[in-house]
Amino acid sequence: MKILCVLYDDPKDGMPKNYPLSELPELKKYPDGMTLPTPKAIDFTPGELLGCVSGELGLRKFLEERGHTLVITSDKDGDNSVAAKEIVDADVVISQPFWPFYLTRELIEKARNLKLAITAGIGSDHVDLQAAMDNKVDVVEVTYCNSISVSEHIVMMILSMVRDYHNQHAIAKSGGWNIADAVQRSYDVEGMHIGTVAAGRIGLSALRKMKPFETHLHYFDRHRLPESIEKELDLTFHESVESMVAVCDVVTINCPLHPETENMFDKELIGKMKKGAYLINTARGKICNREAIADALKSGQLSGYAGDVWFPQPAPNDHVWRTMPNHGMTPHTSGTSLSAQARYAAGTREILECFFDDVPIRAQYLIVQNGELAGAGAHSYSKGTATSGSEEAERYKK
Amino acid sequence: MKILCVLYDDPKDGMPKNYPLSELPELKKYPDGMTLPTPKAIDFTPGELLGCVSGELGLRKFLEERGHTLVITSDKDGDNSVAAKEIVDADVVISQPFWPFYLTRELIEKARNLKLAITAGIGSDHVDLQAAMDNKVDVVEVTYCNSISVSEHIVMMILSMVRDYHNQHAIAKSGGWNIADAVQRSYDVEGMHIGTVAAGRIGLSALRKMKPFETHLHYFDRHRLPESIEKELDLTFHESVESMVAVCDVVTINCPLHPETENMFDKELIGKMKKGAYLINTARGKICNREAIADALKSGQLSGYAGDVWFPQPAPNDHVWRTMPNHGMTPHTSGTSLSAQARYAAGTREILECFFDDVPIRAQYLIVQNGELAGAGAHSYSKGTATSGSEEAERYKK
Repeated sequence: MKILCVLYDDPKDGMPKNYPLSELPELKKYPDGMTLPTPKAIDFTPGELLGCVSGELGLRKFLEERGHTLVITSDKDGDNSVAAKEIVDADVVISQPFWPFYLTRELIEKARNLKLAITAGIGSDHVDLQAAMDNKVDVVEVTYCNSISVSEHIVMMILSMVRDYHNQHAIAKSGGWNIADAVQRSYDVEGMHIGTVAAGRIGLSALRKMKPFETHLHYFDRHRLPESIEKELDLTFHESVESMVAVCDVVTINCPLHPETENMFDKELIGKMKKGAYLINTARGKICNREAIADALKSGQLSGYAGDVWFPQPAPNDHVWRTMPNHGMTPHTSGTSLSAQARYAAGTREILECFFDDVPIRAQYLIVQNGELAGAGAHSYSKGTATSGSEEAERYKK
Repeated sequence: MKILCVLYDDPKDGMPKNYPLSELPELKKYPDGMTLPTPKAIDFTPGELLGCVSGELGLRKFLEERGHTLVITSDKDGDNSVAAKEIVDADVVISQPFWPFYLTRELIEKARNLKLAITAGIGSDHVDLQAAMDNKVDVVEVTYCNSISVSEHIVMMILSMVRDYHNQHAIAKSGGWNIADAVQRSYDVEGMHIGTVAAGRIGLSALRKMKPFETHLHYFDRHRLPESIEKELDLTFHESVESMVAVCDVVTINCPLHPETENMFDKELIGKMKKGAYLINTARGKICNREAIADALKSGQLSGYAGDVWFPQPAPNDHVWRTMPNHGMTPHTSGTSLSAQARYAAGTREILECFFDDVPIRAQYLIVQNGELAGAGAHSYSKGTATSGSEEAERYKK
């Protein structure tokens, strides 16, 4: 079979010889008891850079020994890209949220042999799920592989925004020492009201991590959490996003992107937030309206915005979120720490082993199966597509 | 009486008219049950910038109504500074760790009227405590006022160093999108071994906050914690710093500076740390050897160093910690968030009210009393001084 794998570019200075830490901590299981990926073997050392082109997700030896063809590229945008050409006769496509190969209806319809689309990570909104259903392409992702990674990023960003870390760090680096400049926008998180839009694996983990900060915790979700968890964390449940954002100092977005959540944080909803609140979005860029975010930072309606998700990706060099005031943006990195890479590389291999050997893929990994939303997909996604506008990714110049 | 108050400079663009958040969260008490500062009244709105010269710690009205003279200056370094001249006939001196007026033996001996030195904050190492004892100057600080603020800063810095936030943020700001560059030094904190040097208010709070990250927690302290806390947080106690640093991925320093802790993290101790570990120091700059830290970052023995304490302060513009690789430094800000300022301004007023009305100052606030280490001082400090070398602060050019 032919496997097309779309990964991000190598480091500019080539693959590093040494990594800072000599070994990764070993984890026993995910917090809910779900087992970590269980491939029969792996051909990489956890902690290596696996998510870029030369990293190959550690798959080449395994695939070639089984007689398959592996094509890897980072060239993904536009009709003339390598990925757009190679997908035509591919059986399996592996893609990533960080460097998303936008699987539009047009591409899916062209890919006559395509049976399986694997997201090496979590979040399959870069796939037109409706088109996948219509064309009987199964869609799977490596559920939980980087949820905790993302929740760490969220806590880091909440603290950095509220305490105004970037401003302070810039003063230290540039030789300055005006402490009043450094702290005139700096607060403690203690006592603040923190709310999450969706309390799934990531949102709930972020709430748990904020609990010892003596904060007041809120959530909105279309699925209510068990009463035991609400009590344990002293959570306030809200029936609507509007009700929650009106009382929170910090809001963190942790829902998937689908047609119902696209553009949720527009000018109107941001206007209902507390004056001077902070917004953290590590979910998907399209959930927030680009201009409304930039305007709210300029007007002071928002005191800070941080996140690692943009639309499209790569973000155009002149994307306004790169230069708006008081932001704490990163490229899409939260779910692709070296620690996360080891898990999603192993999970991708587990999925491929199942697919080749005709063994069922874990139900938790399924988004679309046999033309229907399935497993995790039915819980979190809605039908339709959220890929439109992705052609703008071509505007990124390296 | 004459009160000399040494505060940091105003913001470069003048005092801000508006602050990002319209109101601060109200806190009921400190985590151990100790009450927040209890002055009879305050003349400021919590959330205002109080710690700089124009902020006056909100004290002028109160002091002048009582017939006292308040002198405020930021000019603190060298024999010709305003502070060095004004202290000669001052009865009370108020100073801050962030912009420390180094009360050397020479200055204390010159200040014939001096009865009380108040640290508006925590950490009185900028006072020659031995000279204060010898000259019967009482030394007090606003215990607990910013301990939680500092512990938040620590968690922020641990996450930012381990995940490599500054590098990622710089890429986003500069128009880039090389994810491999952004994550080749990025790890999850989950599963790591985190250790604190001293588990007092700050160190213990940082451990509590790291607990839900599913980390392994360690501590060294000259006072062992109650067994109930060790069990609750599953802490590993170490008899020596050496034993602890050998097994930790992240070490955070939370002991006071006194002659026994000065230069503790020298080349030898850093050499005993795990290769590629991270070091966070929000305690005092002098606890770490300046050159040894910079060398360890260059060699890769340390993967990252972050903190907000330097020696002297302000740090000379060319201080090597401003430009060494993989650092996450801030000016001395962690304990002077707007939230912390409201508490230490109120605490300073509480202390002054007690002093003027001849009411005992809270035992928790006392460092030196009647020529002896007292209260908090006896618990945390040793005799002697750690102020030598402070003349280098004059090398900072605004």
